[in-house]
Amino acid sequence: MSLIVHKYGGTSMGTPERIRNVARRVAKWARAGHQMIVVPSAMSGETNRLLGLAREVAPASTTAAVQRELDMIASTGEQVSVGLLALALQAEGLDAVSYTGWQVPVRTDSAYTKARIESIDDARVRADLASGKVVVITGFQGIDGEGHITTLGRGGSDTSAVAIAAALKADECLIYTDVDGVYTTDPRIVAEARRLKSISFEEMLEMASLGSKVLQIRSVEFAGKYRVPMRVLSSFTPWDIDLAEEARSGTLITFEEDENMEQAVVSGIAFNRDEAKVSLLGVPDRPGIAFQILGPVAEANIDIDVIIQNVSHDGKTDFSFTVHRNDYARTLELLKGTVAPRIEAAQVVGDPKICKVSIVGIGMRSHVGVASKMFGALSEEGINIQMISTSEIKTSVVIDEKYMELAVRALHKAFDLEQADAAA
Amino acid sequence: MSLIVHKYGGTSMGTPERIRNVARRVAKWARAGHQMIVVPSAMSGETNRLLGLAREVAPASTTAAVQRELDMIASTGEQVSVGLLALALQAEGLDAVSYTGWQVPVRTDSAYTKARIESIDDARVRADLASGKVVVITGFQGIDGEGHITTLGRGGSDTSAVAIAAALKADECLIYTDVDGVYTTDPRIVAEARRLKSISFEEMLEMASLGSKVLQIRSVEFAGKYRVPMRVLSSFTPWDIDLAEEARSGTLITFEEDENMEQAVVSGIAFNRDEAKVSLLGVPDRPGIAFQILGPVAEANIDIDVIIQNVSHDGKTDFSFTVHRNDYARTLELLKGTVAPRIEAAQVVGDPKICKVSIVGIGMRSHVGVASKMFGALSEEGINIQMISTSEIKTSVVIDEKYMELAVRALHKAFDLEQADAAA
Repeated sequence: MSLIVHKYGGTSMGTPERIRNVARRVAKWARAGHQMIVVPSAMSGETNRLLGLAREVAPASTTAAVQRELDMIASTGEQVSVGLLALALQAEGLDAVSYTGWQVPVRTDSAYTKARIESIDDARVRADLASGKVVVITGFQGIDGEGHITTLGRGGSDTSAVAIAAALKADECLIYTDVDGVYTTDPRIVAEARRLKSISFEEMLEMASLGSKVLQIRSVEFAGKYRVPMRVLSSFTPWDIDLAEEARSGTLITFEEDENMEQAVVSGIAFNRDEAKVSLLGVPDRPGIAFQILGPVAEANIDIDVIIQNVSHDGKTDFSFTVHRNDYARTLELLKGTVAPRIEAAQVVGDPKICKVSIVGIGMRSHVGVASKMFGALSEEGINIQMISTSEIKTSVVIDEKYMELAVRALHKAFDLEQADAAA
Repeated sequence: MSLIVHKYGGTSMGTPERIRNVARRVAKWARAGHQMIVVPSAMSGETNRLLGLAREVAPASTTAAVQRELDMIASTGEQVSVGLLALALQAEGLDAVSYTGWQVPVRTDSAYTKARIESIDDARVRADLASGKVVVITGFQGIDGEGHITTLGRGGSDTSAVAIAAALKADECLIYTDVDGVYTTDPRIVAEARRLKSISFEEMLEMASLGSKVLQIRSVEFAGKYRVPMRVLSSFTPWDIDLAEEARSGTLITFEEDENMEQAVVSGIAFNRDEAKVSLLGVPDRPGIAFQILGPVAEANIDIDVIIQNVSHDGKTDFSFTVHRNDYARTLELLKGTVAPRIEAAQVVGDPKICKVSIVGIGMRSHVGVASKMFGALSEEGINIQMISTSEIKTSVVIDEKYMELAVRALHKAFDLEQADAAA
């Protein structure tokens, strides 16, 4: 007998019929002898509907008092879901009970709309499991030290599921989602993209943060920190498929030391088309210059991704970074109007038509020549590299947006990712 | 400075624009120096939508486990309302905070979907009021001893508002609703019907239970028990009408001893068209016969209203009672199939086309001849009385349904109810 956590997204909970199918799937696992905890998201569209009502009632504001009320409102979406799913489970003949975040309780800090989980009390849930109940717990929310409802921010239900799995020491946390696993790259771009049977949580972190939006990145961080085995699998398979087959499906997010890991040097190709690059040219190379540039950008609440500063010549250097494309105009304005005059930079240039392509793989740590193989493959296709950024397990390049698909396909082929059985 | 509780129904909370108007009205009271607590219902249609989803997911059931989940689901309607109203109040420049039932907490028993309030902790709310906050509290719900969410049943927000007013020793509880007060009878039937400036809570209890559906009857019981001055007034007046005028409007539900009471013998005419009567004729008159008849009816979950048993002759008597018209067929079947054979009654007869008309008034206690005046007025119109039932402050008759309007108008006139200023 194992303790298993299932997490279902908003699409899986989208209609009463789909909720009944989730209940049937959970019932199959429970009848096979597993202790079951289920964490469903709000019904699809519900969180947007609720926050839309809030916006219609009062203008948006970032004061804590306003954010608190937004959490009060948004948290009801998941509360409805757990109640409905518990009813559906009872209709399947199971003993089921639902809990909100405050009932467990899932304790968080007080950062309304983006709270972080601090601790989870497992006593109540454990007692229910011991008495044979399926326990349904709201994702996305908790309670702070003052008894106020908090939410974890968009996609927070993944994090809730993993955190609950960690607190209860579950054997596995299964994330049922719209896709059937993590792929070597986006199958819409490379037809030969292959589903990975497993991926290390560090690789998954890079894949997720680089735009493979399968999982909320904080849930992967949590899984890594607490060593919770986590599986991404499809919620679109029939609920009555063979349990053993279902339990092996999807992609397992695991730990470096695991025996079963695929040993490919590069596990996947990630990409991100939502970025823009900006450069300050002819910047006097003196201590504190990076802070003088990026401080005002951060203050303006603009997130920065890749940052490049090359060696200087003649006491001048060029400083480049990428931002979300939506922030491009605002960033340029800020640099031209405020930053460049203050630091006496010669020129501000930018380009919103860029993209970032990355190779990700634990194997890169111990294999030399991976980066040069990447650059070679791009060179063969005549693709000019504008920026390069590396970490232990990934290498990213910024290139002209129009070459994105070409670059992803060339790299997928260069690292033999399409050869499923050979690499696995 | 007074402590005032406002309660707003689902219609008042029906759209973002209406919610903003509620906030403006509350702000007017707060700016006049009053400490304010607001208890809003769920947005109109929301509770039905939520319970409809529940029915689509799983068949209805009366087990506690199912009822618990229904409360989990239904309670979110009010939670959304309090959050939205707090946002709207903040947008009006007020310091406002919302609480669910469990946050106050409002403690109830565990009778899911029809729980009763046991106690209300006033510490948190009182601290907020002292610091100048407007406190918005969910109606309709609470928390039981085990930390489960409970709801009070339909219309429970009225009861919540009065209970909160009682716990906080509020100066007045204002129930804003679709009607502008309590009338001597339904103005759709008697054009001359007059709004009462005040009514005793005992009269209000009779009026409410007799079908004047202005207030949930339990809220009136609460107001009586804890002596909370309660006012029913219109939510359709412009939010910016003069506060003093608004504070005098509607109908005050008060106590017998109050000086300001209207001294009419009869305060109003109530009626109910939803009833049907059944009679067992030729019943052997022996001890326990009433229980033998009504026990099976109660077991079948059929509510009984008026019960009449007259003196017997030749050891036989006739036993009549009224039920809701929806239960008429089921009641007849039960009596004919089971009850009548067992007690050896001669015959079972019934009539679904009846109605009940009642005169209600504290003054009846000390005035003789009120009932006979009623019977005389009906007789003058040629209306035959089928059943009579009396209490200290009301007299009810069951008559043919087709005479209902005629009877109500005749009685309204006979007791001079249209002469507003003379009676007030």
